Amino acid sequence: MVKGLTPRSEDYARWYNEVVQQAELADYAPVRGCMVIRPYGYALWERIQSALDRRFKETGHENAYFPLLIPASFLEREAEHVEGFSPELAVVTIGGGKQLEEPLVVRPTSETIIGHMYAKWIKSYRDLPVLINQWSNVVRWELRPRLFLRTTEFLWQEGHTAHATREEAEAEVRRMLDVYADFAEKEAAVPVIRGQKSETEKFAGAVASYAIEAMMGDGRALQSGTSHDLGQNFARAFEITYQTADGGLEHVWTASWGLSTRFVGAIVMVHGDDRGLILPPRLAPYQAVIVPIWHGDEEKALVTEAAKKAYAALSDFRVKLDDRDQLTPGFKFNDWEMRGVPLRIEIGPRDVAGGHVVLARRDKPGRDGKSTVPMGDLAPGVAAALDAIQASLFERAVGFRAAHTSAPTSYDGLCSAVAEGFAHAYWCGSRECEARVKADTTATIRCIPFDQPAGSGACVVCGSSAEKRALFARAY
Amino acid sequence: MVKGLTPRSEDYARWYNEVVQQAELADYAPVRGCMVIRPYGYALWERIQSALDRRFKETGHENAYFPLLIPASFLEREAEHVEGFSPELAVVTIGGGKQLEEPLVVRPTSETIIGHMYAKWIKSYRDLPVLINQWSNVVRWELRPRLFLRTTEFLWQEGHTAHATREEAEAEVRRMLDVYADFAEKEAAVPVIRGQKSETEKFAGAVASYAIEAMMGDGRALQSGTSHDLGQNFARAFEITYQTADGGLEHVWTASWGLSTRFVGAIVMVHGDDRGLILPPRLAPYQAVIVPIWHGDEEKALVTEAAKKAYAALSDFRVKLDDRDQLTPGFKFNDWEMRGVPLRIEIGPRDVAGGHVVLARRDKPGRDGKSTVPMGDLAPGVAAALDAIQASLFERAVGFRAAHTSAPTSYDGLCSAVAEGFAHAYWCGSRECEARVKADTTATIRCIPFDQPAGSGACVVCGSSAEKRALFARAY
Repeated sequence: MVKGLTPRSEDYARWYNEVVQQAELADYAPVRGCMVIRPYGYALWERIQSALDRRFKETGHENAYFPLLIPASFLEREAEHVEGFSPELAVVTIGGGKQLEEPLVVRPTSETIIGHMYAKWIKSYRDLPVLINQWSNVVRWELRPRLFLRTTEFLWQEGHTAHATREEAEAEVRRMLDVYADFAEKEAAVPVIRGQKSETEKFAGAVASYAIEAMMGDGRALQSGTSHDLGQNFARAFEITYQTADGGLEHVWTASWGLSTRFVGAIVMVHGDDRGLILPPRLAPYQAVIVPIWHGDEEKALVTEAAKKAYAALSDFRVKLDDRDQLTPGFKFNDWEMRGVPLRIEIGPRDVAGGHVVLARRDKPGRDGKSTVPMGDLAPGVAAALDAIQASLFERAVGFRAAHTSAPTSYDGLCSAVAEGFAHAYWCGSRECEARVKADTTATIRCIPFDQPAGSGACVVCGSSAEKRALFARAY
Repeated sequence: MVKGLTPRSEDYARWYNEVVQQAELADYAPVRGCMVIRPYGYALWERIQSALDRRFKETGHENAYFPLLIPASFLEREAEHVEGFSPELAVVTIGGGKQLEEPLVVRPTSETIIGHMYAKWIKSYRDLPVLINQWSNVVRWELRPRLFLRTTEFLWQEGHTAHATREEAEAEVRRMLDVYADFAEKEAAVPVIRGQKSETEKFAGAVASYAIEAMMGDGRALQSGTSHDLGQNFARAFEITYQTADGGLEHVWTASWGLSTRFVGAIVMVHGDDRGLILPPRLAPYQAVIVPIWHGDEEKALVTEAAKKAYAALSDFRVKLDDRDQLTPGFKFNDWEMRGVPLRIEIGPRDVAGGHVVLARRDKPGRDGKSTVPMGDLAPGVAAALDAIQASLFERAVGFRAAHTSAPTSYDGLCSAVAEGFAHAYWCGSRECEARVKADTTATIRCIPFDQPAGSGACVVCGSSAEKRALFARAY
């Protein structure tokens, strides 16, 4: 049922929560902080999984599955790791009716348990690299939950790789960040900025963390995927060693990378509008919906037949034929617009008589987005329209980001810039300057982008010399 | 590395454990009762998932995801359910560093949490049926773990449906049992017997449970998939009601059905032999492996080129080209035989000269299973060989089962029959007779098969009149 949706332009946070629930992407679970991913939201996640999994396999990775329950002592073996994750843990203390001797942690991430197994499996340089990915659920206790964006349990994939050299591990970290960026931009039409995390923001236990950062429709940033260079930290903690070609014994170099159901939130927030979701055609569960329009039985028979023909002609696409009798076309238009189906195909008696259908683009409500296509050209017409929508969503997001990005050179300029969107500004690298910005504006350093202007400048906070510009923004 | 594998014929249980680990299907995890599913085992599970998921979607089901953590009080709402599952629960008592007010159970199955959500979503007869499936992990504390067969955590799918009438729910229960049987026989080449569980063996909280039962290579039974008629038990416990077409208010009727990573164990145990695994072609991660055979650089160049051509010609199949330099063909033969790849493609210098390759069937070691195929006919030749292997594995399993199945009419006959395999015998329906058989032989009633002879008989235990034959067997 389409209820009144708070316009996005009026209250972004409320709009987000309403549209996620009304479009039946997700619902709140009875346990605080947890969510239920409903079939429509899960179908979107399945499309995301499929687009990523193909890329992982093309880059030589295999899937596997490691246990949910991790001995609590494992986390303590890497000092930064346990410090970072301890406050977020769910702990099993009773198993099979008995108090456990050692509590078990519900995995918040799997570096430790996978490190333990890699130590067992990796013996020689011939066993390297190990390139494994896992699709799984993880639990991190969340005090301020938001559907998809921050939930106590979420679904994700976590890649965990082991390499013979530092260089190979570093190359993997960058390769997978590129895979994420390619996925985000090509499949989700979400433009992203690639860069390195500051020390403050990096993964607990990593040598260096990298991320793709996207701008949401309110100018805030969302970290949409991360890739971590773990150096030999976990290899040392779990004694993952290998015999080199010349008989020596070395610790491996490891990397990990993850992308989660949070990305569903990014898609909602980047593309949606006052009417609801707008889903990118390459990921949309339904790429098009056919809505027959008729009055009376005679028209109904005629139009229904044409609608079925259209449905049959579109078997290469993900199409829904909405032939529900008890609902008006207007209701259906609103309903599918709210659910973000990229293309609507309208068929009425005049269309049948004229041998054509009307295509209406979700991204361009009103006349501009409407066109008439002969029935004989339906499949190529739909393909072209979907490509156009996919390209247009990406361009619009790029344009929006450009319009909300600045490069302030003064501290006042930075403070006002982060209230509007992204700010690229020189930063000296000190934690103090980073902390001051956060305290004054709530904005954080999202990353130090790979893409940097030539030359150097003065730190936007303290004025001392700075090599690189950082991306400052308020973030989800 | 191929180490000495205990022959299956010598020690079945030990063979099973060794082959699962040596073929790298799975490994033991550091937490007792848990396992790691390694890439080769997970690839097999992905094939199982894909074959099932296609069938679920064809029968109108959608996937969704419900939370891992369930309030402990939810389980208590259905008396039999909590009694059945309490001894197996893992319980989270600490979250985010604090003792929880209400402990959370790690899901052992999801009837309760899904029932809670269905009560929220279902309002009217128009909302029915709800046909949802979930792919997830579940935890049931296991004291006598065995890789894949019984593990504290396992992966599965659980279907949960809600219907307006008892008849519709019953039809769903039977439909999904048929889906499982079709999957098991067509994809896994595992013949199964469909039937109803006895009261003693049924799911905790169900009105009636049904299962597919398969015979393993040692004559024991493995319950390979289950489908439960839950009546209105969970609808009452969670107040799942709907408004009928004429304005009344009724409880829905629910069903649930599941198949788990246990099925990987069934594939290993049904088809494997002294040399290791034999995987059915339709599910095998690699359907064929190409092994080049050469001595010296000249032959190597020639054979490698032909092997690459063969690989390219087989792009419609899942093929591995084993071009590892440092290993002998003999080693590779043993290695891939142990891993159960259905078809080996050998290419040596004489084959290149003759313009053909040798196909060697895994299910028929020795000359019988070898044939020569012209390079030009490679793809159809491989397709035909894989079809023949798939059919032959099924026939062999059917034959083995027939040879180890009897229909005893005396109690002594039953006791000796269940030591060898399956026994179809009349049963009066009493718990006492069922319990006596279990106490004397460890065999249980696997199911009351749908397929029954005409007429009736005398209970094999007490001699009183019996309507139906039960399937007795020792089980995993």
